[in-house]
Amino acid sequence: MNDRTICAVSTPPGTGGIAVIRVSGSDAISICDRVFVPAKPIQTLTGQHANTVVYGYIRRAGEVLDNVLATVFRAPHSFTGEDTVEISCHGSLYIQQQIMVWLIENGACQALPGEFTQRAFLNGKMDLSQAEAVADLIASTSAGMYRLAMNQMRGGFSGELKQLRSQLLDFVSLIELELDFGDHEELEFADRSELQVLAIQIRNRIEALTDSFAAGNAIKNGIPVAIIGKPNVGKSTLLNALLNEERSIVTDIPGTTRDTIEETLYINGQLFRMIDTAGLRDHTTDRIEALGIQRSFEKAEKASVILYLFDLTQEQQEDIIATSQWLNKFNKPILMIGTKNDIARRSPVHTSGHVKAKHISCKEPADIERVKKDIVRLSNIQRISDNDVIVSNVRHYEALCRAGESIKRALEGLSQNLSGDLLAQDIRECLHYLGEITGGEIATDEILGTIFSKFCIGK
Amino acid sequence: MNDRTICAVSTPPGTGGIAVIRVSGSDAISICDRVFVPAKPIQTLTGQHANTVVYGYIRRAGEVLDNVLATVFRAPHSFTGEDTVEISCHGSLYIQQQIMVWLIENGACQALPGEFTQRAFLNGKMDLSQAEAVADLIASTSAGMYRLAMNQMRGGFSGELKQLRSQLLDFVSLIELELDFGDHEELEFADRSELQVLAIQIRNRIEALTDSFAAGNAIKNGIPVAIIGKPNVGKSTLLNALLNEERSIVTDIPGTTRDTIEETLYINGQLFRMIDTAGLRDHTTDRIEALGIQRSFEKAEKASVILYLFDLTQEQQEDIIATSQWLNKFNKPILMIGTKNDIARRSPVHTSGHVKAKHISCKEPADIERVKKDIVRLSNIQRISDNDVIVSNVRHYEALCRAGESIKRALEGLSQNLSGDLLAQDIRECLHYLGEITGGEIATDEILGTIFSKFCIGK
Repeated sequence: MNDRTICAVSTPPGTGGIAVIRVSGSDAISICDRVFVPAKPIQTLTGQHANTVVYGYIRRAGEVLDNVLATVFRAPHSFTGEDTVEISCHGSLYIQQQIMVWLIENGACQALPGEFTQRAFLNGKMDLSQAEAVADLIASTSAGMYRLAMNQMRGGFSGELKQLRSQLLDFVSLIELELDFGDHEELEFADRSELQVLAIQIRNRIEALTDSFAAGNAIKNGIPVAIIGKPNVGKSTLLNALLNEERSIVTDIPGTTRDTIEETLYINGQLFRMIDTAGLRDHTTDRIEALGIQRSFEKAEKASVILYLFDLTQEQQEDIIATSQWLNKFNKPILMIGTKNDIARRSPVHTSGHVKAKHISCKEPADIERVKKDIVRLSNIQRISDNDVIVSNVRHYEALCRAGESIKRALEGLSQNLSGDLLAQDIRECLHYLGEITGGEIATDEILGTIFSKFCIGK
Repeated sequence: MNDRTICAVSTPPGTGGIAVIRVSGSDAISICDRVFVPAKPIQTLTGQHANTVVYGYIRRAGEVLDNVLATVFRAPHSFTGEDTVEISCHGSLYIQQQIMVWLIENGACQALPGEFTQRAFLNGKMDLSQAEAVADLIASTSAGMYRLAMNQMRGGFSGELKQLRSQLLDFVSLIELELDFGDHEELEFADRSELQVLAIQIRNRIEALTDSFAAGNAIKNGIPVAIIGKPNVGKSTLLNALLNEERSIVTDIPGTTRDTIEETLYINGQLFRMIDTAGLRDHTTDRIEALGIQRSFEKAEKASVILYLFDLTQEQQEDIIATSQWLNKFNKPILMIGTKNDIARRSPVHTSGHVKAKHISCKEPADIERVKKDIVRLSNIQRISDNDVIVSNVRHYEALCRAGESIKRALEGLSQNLSGDLLAQDIRECLHYLGEITGGEIATDEILGTIFSKFCIGK
């Protein structure tokens, strides 16, 4: 595959001041020499020093297509590890398209999604988990997501896993050596108690990593917050009030699904998924259904935090208490919010009595701020420092779970004095799954293709 | 204003593989040295050679924000003519935003729209019409728009205008010298017949340029094509058939208004604005209104080409003939299209008789292609070659019209042997308007601000 020289627009799709087209592969520089004419009569891009920029023109059939800057990188000192030229052109869609066509007519191929990063991986510039972190880094829209991806890209847990894996590999080699001397049952090259210490260490580390997935997932995909309550208590009003302030700050985020009833919201750089439940009617005779919460069951089940809204000017105290008790069974952080406080203040109010609740008015920015603070507090967000290692990738999580099962079986085997061959099998399995994360054990193009196809084109 | 060092994301807004942040101004390199740490221990960006790229990190408060490439350009050899650093970072929205914040905290200012290009103009890197062409170039989505902008950016008519203007300036100086010797009425430093030759040359050139505006405007804003006809004759079906094929090729074009009833369409790289008229009812007694075309009057007036659709299975021959005659008064290219030919072929057809019409089925791709070819043929598009000079900018057009009026007054004055002071006034006015185009006569920040505010940020 690396025989192909690939090219793609690497900057975001659309129109802008400038766009960058990246060309990578063994013919990158010579292909660009065919389309690029330097403004000053220097020899060629081929004759250029690495890491230098030349001003010139993309010329096609005697016509200047655009004035551009061409930057030359030479293998292995480039992102992909291959010879690379980055062409910085005017950010018109037409120009971007025409330069791409012209490069392709001169021997380059349109890069597949993630193909530059895939080459960086194949050329040993980064391991697989680091390559995957590049995609996460690009997609990051919050401080948490960013930090997670950055930690992973800078080595993250893959360095630690590699080290544990290499120690484990030493042990399994010794055990397999024992098997070669199969007749001498007493022979133990691999010290079983040392192996046990290592296996416990690995099991604990894997468990810590799999435990971190919940936090990682919350950061990456947002913490689900259910907003429930009867119709017209102001659920949508609250949601809009929460969103409006943020919308002006956070610009449109590609990839967030706006076609579901979920809205995404950033508070202090943390992503939340606000699940607004449709207004629930209370025409049934069932007490709980009448309270308008039964149908919210599913939403509440999926949420990490529940906001229960009731109308301060309408709701009966006994209803609020009953609801509160019913909600407690979810065993999740709940925020009871009495709405329309601006009206309630001016009229005979049904106090919420024994139930602890915030009284708010959505017209009051300070009230909305208090709700936000409460959501953050209740969601109990794990602060990630620069050195925290958190798993956020489903593929890694699954591999870690399987590696964990294998190492636990190996530990059981050790405690039961199982024979070396069975032990070796479990350890090999654990090694395999750990290797899948960093890519050492992934050889097939198919699996790599699946991983990199999730990337954007141009990266 | 040039005391400020400015920064902006110059690549298209959104998420992509990489994004480029441009920093320009006298402190650009020193500001970047505060936020950038090179991967290899070289000294600083300040110590870097011009036009070289350094790999390193954006570091904030001891934390690595991103791995980036920093390219150093030194005044005057940069786009703006100032010291410039281009930071190529990962294309995450979060990272782009954070690096911008960090640059601003270190002394840079957020660039205004078009401010980089405005500086290029103020630093003498290009004249005003070239600077304006940069914006057009970026916005270009078709070959015609692109070529128009490219010609203008590469000098276009501004070079020619400058030359004519400088000759005219020589004459007016001589005339004004005559005025200083006011008593000697016989004195003529400026040869009137030579002046007349030059004035005629300038008038002709200005007229050619103002005449080109129609073509330039058609290229830039699209050729308006009205689709008219009774309800259910297949206007929307034809429009969709015309659009569908193109939509997959032309990606979403920012700036095109989809909220009007106009749809834009590219045929052979030329932009068309398809004006689909709402189905027109024929419940009135008025004959023409009954034909469903009276209300299309306005649309037809505005269009360059009219497509009149009628249903081959429904329309009466006399109606078609009457419509055809009515349409002729618009004195515009008209294409009569009989639709639903697939059904008509299998049933007793009302032939369109003496009216020349295309019979089509929108289900037949070949028919749609024929319609496209006809639209192109009827719209009589001017082919622009590399050296054609075409005015597409409204500001230029208006300045040229005014300059044309002034030079015509000067010519009249010459033929009437008008006195030197009146002649000088007309010529000065002409010089002023010509100067407005290239920017030589535009001094106020306000006017420049208006021109550059139409640019995107980052350019």
